[in-house]
Amino acid sequence: MSSVDHNKSALPADKGQKKKKRIHLNGFDMFTVSHLSFGQWRNPKDRSKTKRRDLSYWTDLAKVLEKGEFTALFLADTYGIYDTYKGSADPAIRYGAQVPMGDPSIPITAMASVTKNLSFAITTSTSYEAPYVVAKRFSTLDHLTGGRFGWNIVTSWKASASKALGLPLVEHDRRYQIADEYLRVLYKLWEGSWADDALKEENGSGEYANPDRIKYVHHHGENFHLDGIHILDPSPQRTPFLFQAGTSPAGVTFGSTHAEAIFVAAISPQALAPKVKLIREEVAKRGRDPTSVKIFPVFTPIIGRTEEEAKAKYEEALYYANPEAGLAFFSGGSGIDLSQYDLDQEIKPTDVHVDARVHSALANLQYTSPDIPAWTPRNIGKWIAIGGNGPIPVGTPEKIADILEEWVEVADVDGFNIGYVVSPGSFEDVTELLVPELRKRGLYDPLPGTTLREKVYGEGQKSLLEDHVGRQYRYETYDGK
Amino acid sequence: MSSVDHNKSALPADKGQKKKKRIHLNGFDMFTVSHLSFGQWRNPKDRSKTKRRDLSYWTDLAKVLEKGEFTALFLADTYGIYDTYKGSADPAIRYGAQVPMGDPSIPITAMASVTKNLSFAITTSTSYEAPYVVAKRFSTLDHLTGGRFGWNIVTSWKASASKALGLPLVEHDRRYQIADEYLRVLYKLWEGSWADDALKEENGSGEYANPDRIKYVHHHGENFHLDGIHILDPSPQRTPFLFQAGTSPAGVTFGSTHAEAIFVAAISPQALAPKVKLIREEVAKRGRDPTSVKIFPVFTPIIGRTEEEAKAKYEEALYYANPEAGLAFFSGGSGIDLSQYDLDQEIKPTDVHVDARVHSALANLQYTSPDIPAWTPRNIGKWIAIGGNGPIPVGTPEKIADILEEWVEVADVDGFNIGYVVSPGSFEDVTELLVPELRKRGLYDPLPGTTLREKVYGEGQKSLLEDHVGRQYRYETYDGK
Repeated sequence: MSSVDHNKSALPADKGQKKKKRIHLNGFDMFTVSHLSFGQWRNPKDRSKTKRRDLSYWTDLAKVLEKGEFTALFLADTYGIYDTYKGSADPAIRYGAQVPMGDPSIPITAMASVTKNLSFAITTSTSYEAPYVVAKRFSTLDHLTGGRFGWNIVTSWKASASKALGLPLVEHDRRYQIADEYLRVLYKLWEGSWADDALKEENGSGEYANPDRIKYVHHHGENFHLDGIHILDPSPQRTPFLFQAGTSPAGVTFGSTHAEAIFVAAISPQALAPKVKLIREEVAKRGRDPTSVKIFPVFTPIIGRTEEEAKAKYEEALYYANPEAGLAFFSGGSGIDLSQYDLDQEIKPTDVHVDARVHSALANLQYTSPDIPAWTPRNIGKWIAIGGNGPIPVGTPEKIADILEEWVEVADVDGFNIGYVVSPGSFEDVTELLVPELRKRGLYDPLPGTTLREKVYGEGQKSLLEDHVGRQYRYETYDGK
Repeated sequence: MSSVDHNKSALPADKGQKKKKRIHLNGFDMFTVSHLSFGQWRNPKDRSKTKRRDLSYWTDLAKVLEKGEFTALFLADTYGIYDTYKGSADPAIRYGAQVPMGDPSIPITAMASVTKNLSFAITTSTSYEAPYVVAKRFSTLDHLTGGRFGWNIVTSWKASASKALGLPLVEHDRRYQIADEYLRVLYKLWEGSWADDALKEENGSGEYANPDRIKYVHHHGENFHLDGIHILDPSPQRTPFLFQAGTSPAGVTFGSTHAEAIFVAAISPQALAPKVKLIREEVAKRGRDPTSVKIFPVFTPIIGRTEEEAKAKYEEALYYANPEAGLAFFSGGSGIDLSQYDLDQEIKPTDVHVDARVHSALANLQYTSPDIPAWTPRNIGKWIAIGGNGPIPVGTPEKIADILEEWVEVADVDGFNIGYVVSPGSFEDVTELLVPELRKRGLYDPLPGTTLREKVYGEGQKSLLEDHVGRQYRYETYDGK
């Protein structure tokens, strides 16, 4: 596998300094009534309410993304409820800001059975499930999807989640240390336990698997203990493709060690560029090819065949946007309870009494939503209720493609996690309108191969790259400790 | 819901003492290469090897069971590997005795998307996952299957599993005490947290759910701590339909408290009858209708259109049966390492030096497999390798139906967990050959309704019966503690 050059993801025709990157689009959704666009469930075009009740929500969505040759459907997840705004979880519950929430691992095989190329990445925390349990579940998912599976590693920061789980909330940096050990336990199971030739399936001898080619993992670390073989033979990718988010120093250390793709949120390519540069430097410091870690900012385009059509969709989004839900999300994520301000009184970024985090949030909004009429909490909540904190460019496919190109060029990103206003409508717009434009520009030409890792690094590259930390634990060299 | 009479599952025409029970058939499988019939994966007719790699194994199986109006597909599971025989896990690994093993929750939505009536029950242990995690996953499964979901509650007895999970193996009776608290935590989330009218979905007010109709669970017990609302609104059944196995005193206490169906293994209806009587008495002691707990023995019929055809299938099963895998399974389950005896030397049940558990096992085999030529360990392993410890009646649909009827009459069981020799072939035989015969006899007439609980208790009975312990925690009366 080591002979595969994963830089071939750059198009052959593009040489020299200004070569165009082959970009990835991931659908970005969550098993909840509103992920990043709040109140939009009231729009009859939005099917988000049916996620829990109707498998066809998922199978139809998967077909739309498959048609648009999206790389993956990325499903966020949480065990916590936003409870900062008004000091209560009530606003989030009342207006459906990421609650109710289902388990994203469950609809995957229904979607996999109606697709051939689309991959599926889910968020799972290293804080709430034993590594052995997760190892088995993820190997099952990777097997049954034919290697079209990815994991978005999170460590869980919400106090509400730790209370629900009945576990202490671990301090931020310590969570990443635990997650590091957690990942190494999983590599031992996924990479180290079964040799490539351990599975025999020999009718003559009756030997199904050769125990002499299967190692016991004896892990006795600071946080985890395990003695056993991996209970499942290696799946197509062995280790699922690894996503991560988090731009704190501890998060970057963890991500540049383990992640193959990093999901970021940023207001502008200019603001993102130094962060991407830092991530790639940190990746290089760990002996990895800095271009091998793919960076995906969240992006919620509102696309119309004409500027007018796009503008009308934006107006529709504003009509349905729920400020209270937006504020529940904003306050929960930032830790600032905006209910301390009058809902309709303008907050000036220059007001000295305003919390620095509010300043920063306002600066963000100013960029992503320059047409907010006045900086009142109500308006902040309303604009947040379209695409969350991320950019919501509005326009024709040509305009949106220009913006994406700018992000790729300025910020050196590798693609986008595409959020939605209405689902699957927003994704249909990308598939029907934006993808043909990107393709025309030579920006979009998904790689062959069946597994998620091959879609990113090229055909044949099913396993972790040679320079990835997980390869240290491969069967041939793993010492069983 | 309380007005539904779940005894209407007896056919209207059948009155008086000798009324015929409406029986249930469940498909009995496991996400592994051989569940209870070992070595059969070498038969080209068996598709068990493809379970991990090919979703169509599951969707095709589901269609066969749906056609036969099976009540549910019941998937066993484990985190442990049998390691008693020869004091090693090697025989189980080498011959594929329940290893490799996948996660049974994963293929369910693929199967649900191609069926309308078939339900799905999976085994999950109360020992290895936090209640909050399981509550969310199972609510998701119950939502997405439209209430066609059941849980087989186990407490995990294998030392190999506890080592793999890095947790101490808890003593048998204590495990059931912990499981009792675990179930009560789940009832609080499933039954007690959300009122029936908590979900609003009101476009006008923008209210998605009413927090005033959602209770926080504040559980602080001996083994579990939890503060939070159930993160998902109630699914069609709220609490999934509850299966349980285990005939130890602690197991019966737990089952008669919580189970709605109990899965048993027995060699004959005569041997089973007193156990069933005891279970029903224990159920009645707890204030529950003793007929409301459904009893399902495991049963692996080998069916042919003629006696000759059935006999030929049996001979084929013997041809592929793997004695070493059978012995790994037998020794693991019984705790007796049969490798202490010469593989080909006869063990006489009358030999005084033979362990009492071997006596008992031999007596079992004598009943289920009377044609074993000699009681050598090799032969024991070989016959165990067809259907495990359970009965493997061989014959025409008429003969098998006679046997099932005898079990129902003598042992007062409510149906059968149907094991397979080859999958889906053995299930196809039941659907194509046995089911028509059962139907002709008025034994088989699945109830209307969409949820698993309605299929068992009658249309409209989606929720737990009024006399079930879980109903104590329903929203209306639950105190939030």
